[in-house]
Amino acid sequence: MLIEIAYAGICHSDIHTVQGDWGKVPYPLTVGHEIVGTVAEVGAEVTLHSVGDRVGVGCMVNSCRECDNCKAGQQQYCLQGNTGTYAAVDRDGTVTQGGYSTHVVVVEDFVLRVPESIPYEAAAPLLCAGITTYSPLAHWNAGPGKRVAVVGMGGLGHMAVKIAHAMGAEVTVLSQTLGKKDDGLRMGADHYYATSDASTFEALANTFDLIINTVSAKVDLNAYLGLLRLDGTLVNVGAPPEPLPVGVFTLFGNRRSFAGSSIGSIGETQEMLDFCAERGIAPEVELINADQVNEAWSRVLSSDVRYRFVIDIATLN
Amino acid sequence: MLIEIAYAGICHSDIHTVQGDWGKVPYPLTVGHEIVGTVAEVGAEVTLHSVGDRVGVGCMVNSCRECDNCKAGQQQYCLQGNTGTYAAVDRDGTVTQGGYSTHVVVVEDFVLRVPESIPYEAAAPLLCAGITTYSPLAHWNAGPGKRVAVVGMGGLGHMAVKIAHAMGAEVTVLSQTLGKKDDGLRMGADHYYATSDASTFEALANTFDLIINTVSAKVDLNAYLGLLRLDGTLVNVGAPPEPLPVGVFTLFGNRRSFAGSSIGSIGETQEMLDFCAERGIAPEVELINADQVNEAWSRVLSSDVRYRFVIDIATLN
Repeated sequence: MLIEIAYAGICHSDIHTVQGDWGKVPYPLTVGHEIVGTVAEVGAEVTLHSVGDRVGVGCMVNSCRECDNCKAGQQQYCLQGNTGTYAAVDRDGTVTQGGYSTHVVVVEDFVLRVPESIPYEAAAPLLCAGITTYSPLAHWNAGPGKRVAVVGMGGLGHMAVKIAHAMGAEVTVLSQTLGKKDDGLRMGADHYYATSDASTFEALANTFDLIINTVSAKVDLNAYLGLLRLDGTLVNVGAPPEPLPVGVFTLFGNRRSFAGSSIGSIGETQEMLDFCAERGIAPEVELINADQVNEAWSRVLSSDVRYRFVIDIATLN
Repeated sequence: MLIEIAYAGICHSDIHTVQGDWGKVPYPLTVGHEIVGTVAEVGAEVTLHSVGDRVGVGCMVNSCRECDNCKAGQQQYCLQGNTGTYAAVDRDGTVTQGGYSTHVVVVEDFVLRVPESIPYEAAAPLLCAGITTYSPLAHWNAGPGKRVAVVGMGGLGHMAVKIAHAMGAEVTVLSQTLGKKDDGLRMGADHYYATSDASTFEALANTFDLIINTVSAKVDLNAYLGLLRLDGTLVNVGAPPEPLPVGVFTLFGNRRSFAGSSIGSIGETQEMLDFCAERGIAPEVELINADQVNEAWSRVLSSDVRYRFVIDIATLN
């Protein structure tokens, strides 16, 4: 399917990739894995989408389709490695190219339907920031009676707050400062604490069923693990490149778990889009022109974005 | 209740404690938290046990009884800290003393019934090695269709093999060498691999639903985490004093979890004793006299024990 791209979100991963933080960069490279647009052309065997449909593409565009995980519908955990939307070698040997572009060609079953009720320019970040937080919240049963903490109030964090609140959980934000407290409470957080204040960790010891850590920097993980109550789980969706030291005695207390979660399956991504459409949830975005990308990247690196930059691809020509 | 002790198991924790590995030692101290014996006297309000009953005491002898975890019947995770069987300050201010002794006094609801069908001299290690492995196997649903790996083939490891096999799981032992392979297969393991052979980690990548790590030394945790399949969990019951570095990217693959588990509740300990009695499961022990304890400790430190030393307390006088 040929997709005419309307909007592309800017994810911190784009910057990590281009900086070479995650390995060698396969130049020439176009990044971007939060993509929405309309179907421009379809191949003869395409049945899932039609020309003119509003669609989205997230962090992966293919998988092996044969391993146990693919067969279980969990393509993101493909044992051969899923094919990333950019900087990956696809099954046909080409290097994939991302969404900071006018068009992209993607195989139909890795393309999502984007409900029209989601504001078009705000839909793109759901494809990465949305699903990356929705998936662990759904998998670890965020909902009524559950206490959920969200670490970090950035692109992923603000979506985690909105989604966890919509799922019915009691939501606490743990952010470095109280600078975004009003925003957090408006988005659905019940509580908001500064992690720069050591008393936060005493006040909230043994409290949470689930902590979603969206921070990609190295944090004092044991301090956060201590906030988990019996059988609680801390899930990292942030991706610090270096290993994090975990104290086994901290895990012994309350039978705690430390887990990782990577984006979500195609089926779950569609479920998330439909959930957001139904609940009126959308990312808060700052729309920029194509010639503002460098400036936007600098602002992402200094955490100066509320809460996701989206490129208006119409300005690219 | 006054218990006349018949047998006391030797746990590596006894040695860690006396060596000061886990903090200052409150001398004078008697260690031992794998205790079986008979009830010698009961207080006026005791209703759960009678004089002459065969009973056991494990790693804890009290808890606060008021916190959320105690109220949930999970006394081992008491938020005030459970009272260890030795070297702990009990609720009455006394320092608790363990089972390398002729008698011990324990409050009735922390005393277990030991079914007569379990060989008397072999029952003691169930109170620590047995429950410490039974609890995570039960909690993480070891059973038919599940692939379980046991890391380490010592006191805890050999019990994990027997219990996981009895629960119906497919059991793999991961031991440093193949030295105990025949024993492992006899005890119920389906497969046995040497971790000193690097090809083990390639051959078993993405295999296990559950890994029980009984090793208290610092291991390359990421290598073991890589053996987990989708939604698998590695549970540490071994207690290395220093933090273990965990690679977040390893957790991202297969949505893996790293968890801790500490002994088990009193209710679960009774369930484990009844399970072992019903299935004919018992630790494999080497019975020693009281004057052989120093030698036995040396052999524990050099992993020269198959699979648990038990002191015949009758030889103490």
